[in-house]
Amino acid sequence: MIKFVATLAKHPSMTHEEFVRYWRVQHVPLARELPGLRRYVISPVVASPDGKAPYDGVAELWFDDEETCRASLASPAGARARQDMERFTEPDRITRAITVEERIVWAD
Amino acid sequence: MIKFVATLAKHPSMTHEEFVRYWRVQHVPLARELPGLRRYVISPVVASPDGKAPYDGVAELWFDDEETCRASLASPAGARARQDMERFTEPDRITRAITVEERIVWAD
Repeated sequence: MIKFVATLAKHPSMTHEEFVRYWRVQHVPLARELPGLRRYVISPVVASPDGKAPYDGVAELWFDDEETCRASLASPAGARARQDMERFTEPDRITRAITVEERIVWAD
Repeated sequence: MIKFVATLAKHPSMTHEEFVRYWRVQHVPLARELPGLRRYVISPVVASPDGKAPYDGVAELWFDDEETCRASLASPAGARARQDMERFTEPDRITRAITVEERIVWAD
């Protein structure tokens, strides 16, 4: 599997709390519709150790492979999710990367 | 649990492959020594969907709570790991955030 990672900065008009609420209530149902989505984790930022975290949350989306990920994001559901990002994030500040994760320590 | 997230940009003198090799071989053993570390996942970047991922990898470290995380990073093991970061990353470009993850979709 591959893991698509995006860091999200909140829309300038929103508080951090409004951003997180919109993400959970409005955006999550759209992201769930992405074809081939195996796992989806959202991680709102709760603190910045050095006082300068440049984002308010991290989204992680797992797909079987890179091709499935790209096709999913390019699908109609992907377009709907991307359009929705404009309502609660600052789109120019979103960073996106396709990664492969390696579990080094994993205590349940 | 909380999840500490850091995005890492490779040291300018290294190739992406050298960065990933150093991370796995040299840095991982130091990070494993962090007190209270429950989970540790490294995610090297393999592709950039929009051609501008501003980092080469994402590190995630889970601790019981924020206090344990901060104490761990401030411990002697934390200092050793942080010093080692200077050897394979561009320290000024590291971003750090403390998050709480929410599993929305989680198919094993």
